[in-house]
Amino acid sequence: MKIADDFQKQISRLDNCLAEQWQRLLDSSLLVKAIREGNISRPLYMIYMLETYHYTSHNARNQALVGTRSSVSPVYSKFCLQHASEEVGHEKMALHDIASMGFRGNEGSIPPPLPETETLIAYLYWISLTGNPLQRMGYSYWAENAYQYINPLILGVKNALNLNDQQLTFFVAHGTIDTEHFAEIKTILERTCKTEEDWASVRRVMQTSLSLTGKMLDAVYREYRAFEDGLSEHYDVLNELSAA
Amino acid sequence: MKIADDFQKQISRLDNCLAEQWQRLLDSSLLVKAIREGNISRPLYMIYMLETYHYTSHNARNQALVGTRSSVSPVYSKFCLQHASEEVGHEKMALHDIASMGFRGNEGSIPPPLPETETLIAYLYWISLTGNPLQRMGYSYWAENAYQYINPLILGVKNALNLNDQQLTFFVAHGTIDTEHFAEIKTILERTCKTEEDWASVRRVMQTSLSLTGKMLDAVYREYRAFEDGLSEHYDVLNELSAA
Amino acid sequence: MKIADDFQKQISRLDNCLAEQWQRLLDSSLLVKAIREGNISRPLYMIYMLETYHYTSHNARNQALVGTRSSVSPVYSKFCLQHASEEVGHEKMALHDIASMGFRGNEGSIPPPLPETETLIAYLYWISLTGNPLQRMGYSYWAENAYQYINPLILGVKNALNLNDQQLTFFVAHGTIDTEHFAEIKTILERTCKTEEDWASVRRVMQTSLSLTGKMLDAVYREYRAFEDGLSEHYDVLNELSAA
Amino acid sequence: MKIADDFQKQISRLDNCLAEQWQRLLDSSLLVKAIREGNISRPLYMIYMLETYHYTSHNARNQALVGTRSSVSPVYSKFCLQHASEEVGHEKMALHDIASMGFRGNEGSIPPPLPETETLIAYLYWISLTGNPLQRMGYSYWAENAYQYINPLILGVKNALNLNDQQLTFFVAHGTIDTEHFAEIKTILERTCKTEEDWASVRRVMQTSLSLTGKMLDAVYREYRAFEDGLSEHYDVLNELSAA
Repeated sequence: MKIADDFQKQISRLDNCLAEQWQRLLDSSLLVKAIREGNISRPLYMIYMLETYHYTSHNARNQALVGTRSSVSPVYSKFCLQHASEEVGHEKMALHDIASMGFRGNEGSIPPPLPETETLIAYLYWISLTGNPLQRMGYSYWAENAYQYINPLILGVKNALNLNDQQLTFFVAHGTIDTEHFAEIKTILERTCKTEEDWASVRRVMQTSLSLTGKMLDAVYREYRAFEDGLSEHYDVLNELSAA
Repeated sequence: MKIADDFQKQISRLDNCLAEQWQRLLDSSLLVKAIREGNISRPLYMIYMLETYHYTSHNARNQALVGTRSSVSPVYSKFCLQHASEEVGHEKMALHDIASMGFRGNEGSIPPPLPETETLIAYLYWISLTGNPLQRMGYSYWAENAYQYINPLILGVKNALNLNDQQLTFFVAHGTIDTEHFAEIKTILERTCKTEEDWASVRRVMQTSLSLTGKMLDAVYREYRAFEDGLSEHYDVLNELSAA
Repeated sequence: MKIADDFQKQISRLDNCLAEQWQRLLDSSLLVKAIREGNISRPLYMIYMLETYHYTSHNARNQALVGTRSSVSPVYSKFCLQHASEEVGHEKMALHDIASMGFRGNEGSIPPPLPETETLIAYLYWISLTGNPLQRMGYSYWAENAYQYINPLILGVKNALNLNDQQLTFFVAHGTIDTEHFAEIKTILERTCKTEEDWASVRRVMQTSLSLTGKMLDAVYREYRAFEDGLSEHYDVLNELSAA
Repeated sequence: MKIADDFQKQISRLDNCLAEQWQRLLDSSLLVKAIREGNISRPLYMIYMLETYHYTSHNARNQALVGTRSSVSPVYSKFCLQHASEEVGHEKMALHDIASMGFRGNEGSIPPPLPETETLIAYLYWISLTGNPLQRMGYSYWAENAYQYINPLILGVKNALNLNDQQLTFFVAHGTIDTEHFAEIKTILERTCKTEEDWASVRRVMQTSLSLTGKMLDAVYREYRAFEDGLSEHYDVLNELSAA
C-alpha cells in the first residue's frame, strides 16, 4: 500500500514536471509557432525528419546497451533488450515518409546530424552507459508518451502540406507501438525503482533529454529558415536531393 | 538455386567440422572419461555448473553487444537483441540446480571463474565487439546444437548421482529453448552470410569457442581432482558452501 | 609550399571562427556581465570551479580513448596518450583552489554535475569514440588557447574576491601547460589533417564544444542566482560545505 | 617497514611463480626444442614475428584503456597512459625485422592472427577493461622481464639464421625499453597494490597471460610444421609474401 502510494506519487511528479516543461517548450518554440500559423513548407518537414532519422537510428542501440551493463537485474535487462529489439530499424520509416514527398537521398547521401542532434545522441549514450542504469527510462517516459503534445502539430503539418497517412508512417506506427511501450515502462518503473535516488535519476534524464530535444527542434527551425534564405551550409544539399 | 546450394554446402561444412571436433574433444577429455566410467561425485557436477554459471551469465550480454554495432543490418540486429533477451538470467538455473543438491552459496559468495573459463568469456566478448559481426553465430551454432553430443553425458551424471529432472533445469530448459534457437540461427545465417569471408569467420569462431570450451572442461576436471585431493585453492570453499 | 599555405589558411579559418564565437559568447553571457560589473561572490567562484572539476576529471580519459581507436596513426595515438597522461588529476587543482576559500567538500561529497555540464562531458566522449578521430583536436584547439579570452575575467574574479595566485592554481598551472600543449596541437594538426573533411570535423567539434561550454557557463550563473535566492536545489549543499 | 617487507614477499612470490612457470613452458615447448636443436628456418621466425606483430599492435591500446577506467587513482592512470604512449607503434619493428629477411607483406596483406593469438589479445582487453584495474600489471610483470628466459632462444635463432642486430630490432629495442619499464612497474606495484586481493589479481593475470602466450608459441610451431609440409591454410600465403 505504502509502496503503491509512493509509486503513484512519483509518477505524478514525473507527469507534472513533464506537463510544465512541454508547456514552456511549446510556448517558446519558433518551430511550433510556425506550424501553428501554417508557415511551413516541405523542406521544413524534411529537415525535421532527417534529424529525427539520425537520433532514432541510435535509440535501439543505446537502449540495448543499458541491458548489457553488469549491474542490472535480469528483469530490467530483459526489458531493455526486448524493447530495443522492437525499435530496430524504425529510422527507416522517417526516410520512407520524406521519400514519399520527393526526397531522393538515401542513407549514404543524407547530411550528418546538426550539432544539437548529435548532442542529444551523445547524451543518450552517456546516460545509457554510465550512472544509474534505470535513468534511461526517463527518456522513454516522455518519448513514448509525447503524442498528446505533438499530435496537434503533426495534424497541422499534415493539413498544411496536404499529406496522407501513408506519408506519416513514422508517427502513425510509432503512436501505436509507443502506447504499448509506455504501459510497459510504467510497469518496469514500478518493479525496479526502489530509492529516491532512482526516481531522481529518472527525472533528471527525462528533463535533460526533453530539453536537448527542444534545442534540436530550435536548430531544425534555424536551419529551415537559413535554407529558405539560401544560407544553410548544412541543408543546401536538399535542393539536389529533392524532386521539384 | 545456386545460393541455396551454397548455403547447404556451407552448413554441411560447419556440421562436418563440428562432428570431427566434438569427436576429438570427447575422446581426449578426462572429464568425459570419468563420466563414462561413472567415476564422478557431486562436487564434480557442482564445479562444472559453477563454471557454466560464469560463462552463461555473460552470454546475453555479449550477444546483445553484437546487435548494437553500427555496421549490422536491421534484420541481424533485431535477431541479436531478441535472442539475447531470451537468454537473460539463464545462469540462475545453474545455481538452482546445484542448490537442489546441497550447494549453499549465492551469487555473492561463489568463487571467481577459473582462468580457462575467464578466457572463454573474454574471447566471446572480443569476437562480439570486433571483426565480422556475423561471426558470433559460430558460437551459437555449436552451443545451441550441442545436445546430441552432451546428452549421453548428462544422462550419465544423472544416473550416477541419482538426480531427477528438477535438478537438471539448466539442461532440460535449455534443450527446449535451444532447439528453437538453432532453427532461427540457420535461418539468419541464410539471410545474412553472403561472402566466403562471412562463412570463414563463422567457422573460425565456432572452432575456437568450442576449443576454449574443451579447455574449460579440462580445467573443471583438473580442479575436481585437486579438490578431491584437498589441493584445490580455488574450490576448497566448496566444503563450506555444501551441505553434508 | 602549397600544403603549408593550406595549413595556414585552415588555421586562420579556425582562429576567425573562434574569435567570432568567443565575442558572441562573452557579449551574451550573464556570468561574464556579472564578473565585469564586480557583482560576484565566493559561491559563484565555487560553483564555477565545481562544474570545472567535473568536466576536467573526464578530459584525460576521453583524450586517451581517442588514442586507443584502431584507425588512428601511431603519431596521433602517441600524441593522444602522451597529452592525456599530462592532464591526469588536474581536476584536483580545482578542488584545491576552492578549499583555500573555505570549501569543505571532498570528491565524495560534492554535488553531481549540472545537466549542461553532463551534456558537455557526454559530447566529449561521443566525439572521442566515434566519427573522425582527429576531431577531438577541435576541443583542444580552443580549450588550450582560451586564456586570451578568459584571463581578464579571472583577473576580475581575483580582484573582486581578493584571491592570491595560490588560490588560482587551476588557472595559473593550466595557463603554463596549455601554452606548450597548444603549440603541440598545431604541430599535430599539420601532421595529421589531410583532407577538407578532417578540417571540417575539427571546426565542427571546436564550435560545438565551445557552444556547450557557453551553455555550462550560463547554467553556472543560473544556479548561482538561485543559490543567492535560496532556491538552488542543486547547490544548497554549498551552505553546509563552506566555512563561514 | 612492515609494508616494505610485505612488498618484498609479494615480489618474491611473483618471481617464484614465474620461474617455475617459465621452466615448465620452456621444457614442454616444441618450438623451444626446435630452436635449441637448431631445427629452424626463416619461415619459423617469420611466423613467430607475424603473431608477435598482432598481439603487440594491441598492447598500447589495452594498456591505455586501463588508465581510462573511472576507478583508478591518478598515479596509476598516469603510469598506464605514459607507459602506453611509449609502446605505440612497436609492432612496426616486428614487420621491419622480417622485411629485412625477405618478407614482402605489409599491414594490409598479412594473415589474421592464429586463434591462440586472438585468444591472448581478447584476454588482455578483458582483464584491462574489467576486474581489478591493477591486474594488468601481472602481464607487464612477466612481459617486460622476459629477456632472461628468451634471450638464449633469440641468440639461437640469430645464429641458426645468420641474422645481425639490425634484423632483430624488435628484441634489441624492446630489451632496452623493457628494463626501464620493469623498474617502473615494481615502483608502481609498490605504490598501488594494497590488499592481498590486489596481489592475487596481479598473480592470476601474470600466470594466465603467460600460459596463453605459451599456447600461442605452440600454435606458431604447429603452423610452421604445417607450412613446411605444405599444409598450413593459414600461412601458405608466406610463399607469395617472401622473396626467394
